[in-house]
Amino acid sequence: MTKRDRLNADDIAEGLADLTGWSLSADGSAIEKTYHFPSFVEAFGFMSQSALAAEKLDHHPEWFNVYNRVDVTLTTHTARGVTALDLALAARMEAAASHARA
Amino acid sequence: MTKRDRLNADDIAEGLADLTGWSLSADGSAIEKTYHFPSFVEAFGFMSQSALAAEKLDHHPEWFNVYNRVDVTLTTHTARGVTALDLALAARMEAAASHARA
Repeated sequence: MTKRDRLNADDIAEGLADLTGWSLSADGSAIEKTYHFPSFVEAFGFMSQSALAAEKLDHHPEWFNVYNRVDVTLTTHTARGVTALDLALAARMEAAASHARA
Repeated sequence: MTKRDRLNADDIAEGLADLTGWSLSADGSAIEKTYHFPSFVEAFGFMSQSALAAEKLDHHPEWFNVYNRVDVTLTTHTARGVTALDLALAARMEAAASHARA
């Protein structure tokens, strides 16, 4: 099993248990979280740090930003579902969010 | 009339004539454009330069990014429509996009 193989529901649930505020999408094909920051500056700081992590992982988010809010969806298109890469990027984004708020 | 007053349809049309690829949203309350770049690096480079311009203008975009694509919507919530600020930010984003591709 590689990082790009689709995880089953149990593995995803186990991964999500370590990630505060992340949940499985309605159709089960992605994990998602909405972040709120004090202002645009912190929101974009979070996005910048996440972008570097994404590029390093060679795995990128789908995300929407308006002012202090960032909606993130992570999925692995080639696997048509959630993989270890999505969980890894989510963990990096959690770290980025805590730095952006610090 | 200030930069935060809603523009009428003629003024918006005039502004859009100077902006390649931008169009009025279906409900007339925003202007929008979808950008495509060679990869995530250029897309996020564009977003970074646009974010600095937005912060300087104190006027921020609504935008969605997935890999090399960025969907941008500009509107002025307080005016419930398109203002000179939206046209100004769109012009900055056009400059950012041309730098990101250079």
